[in-house]
Amino acid sequence: MPLVRIDVNKNASSNLIRAVSDAVYDAMVEVAKVPMHDKFQIVTRHETDEIIYPPEGYLGASYSSDIIFIEIVWLGGRSVDTKQRFYARVVDDIHRKQNVRKEDVIIVLVDNGREDWSFGNGVMQYAPK
Amino acid sequence: MPLVRIDVNKNASSNLIRAVSDAVYDAMVEVAKVPMHDKFQIVTRHETDEIIYPPEGYLGASYSSDIIFIEIVWLGGRSVDTKQRFYARVVDDIHRKQNVRKEDVIIVLVDNGREDWSFGNGVMQYAPK
Amino acid sequence: MPLVRIDVNKNASSNLIRAVSDAVYDAMVEVAKVPMHDKFQIVTRHETDEIIYPPEGYLGASYSSDIIFIEIVWLGGRSVDTKQRFYARVVDDIHRKQNVRKEDVIIVLVDNGREDWSFGNGVMQYAPK
Repeated sequence: MPLVRIDVNKNASSNLIRAVSDAVYDAMVEVAKVPMHDKFQIVTRHETDEIIYPPEGYLGASYSSDIIFIEIVWLGGRSVDTKQRFYARVVDDIHRKQNVRKEDVIIVLVDNGREDWSFGNGVMQYAPK
Repeated sequence: MPLVRIDVNKNASSNLIRAVSDAVYDAMVEVAKVPMHDKFQIVTRHETDEIIYPPEGYLGASYSSDIIFIEIVWLGGRSVDTKQRFYARVVDDIHRKQNVRKEDVIIVLVDNGREDWSFGNGVMQYAPK
Repeated sequence: MPLVRIDVNKNASSNLIRAVSDAVYDAMVEVAKVPMHDKFQIVTRHETDEIIYPPEGYLGASYSSDIIFIEIVWLGGRSVDTKQRFYARVVDDIHRKQNVRKEDVIIVLVDNGREDWSFGNGVMQYAPK
């Protein structure tokens, strides 16, 4: 049930996008127990002036124009521990496969409810009993 | 008060976009009792590699590259029944008018509060009393 | 910790974008007590048919094709009063510096939790104790 938005600069290759996409999906399935094949993601490439980050860095991390923003809306209820392992797994995977700097991956989560999803056909597939 | 994000592939015509936009708005007003003229929507067209969905399908639905993502932030408090009728209405309408496959419409909702909206002029128009 | 999405039409200049970006950031730091250097923003420019607003206006405001959408995900817990002062400050600033019509600035807020942020390195920097 997650909806994932990935925002990157315009130089991002299809390979990079596929690696980020797969890293998020794999971490969801393996760490956050999201069902298999629940892979709905929207990528947007941006001009240089459309991606804004603090040149001074933040909380000890420094950022480059290759920063990757990952925003996820998913079903609420996951534990702090699960979310921590999820972040680490996504970033390790992207770093290992595409040599992206670990500091350049920002992840933001938003929780919603079971009744807030329709995966096609105009049906509320997760309707509460 | 809803803010609607509609994400489609780059081949989406202005006619298709207008039909999706109107379907969402009409369902809001008629099913979800959103006030008239409360129509704020942001559409983004995407390259082929920017729209990601499971090739295996999900929960019995199968998807094509014409998949349409609709994400809505609106005021919390609507019932499960209202949300169910809202999904059905949006998808029926898009299907009937533009011959979009019903499986290709994904809808995701996020609730927020009365104090979370400014519709211009820097004012909180729905401020709690 | 806010993640800001700014959506504008394709004619938006780099100067306008910088003014909107800075207005949002400055209001966050000065009014909403967001930490310094916490400036993460994603801008998207849109074709004319991708930005949709009610031609009749809404709640007494009227809109033009220069409408600016600002959506912010941030840590929940800010007061109604803070949010009101935040809206006013952002809009006054953009209006003063870029002569944008005050009616043309829409702001929408979404709250999340401390555990919902990773600012790089795969770490949950705001982890609850």
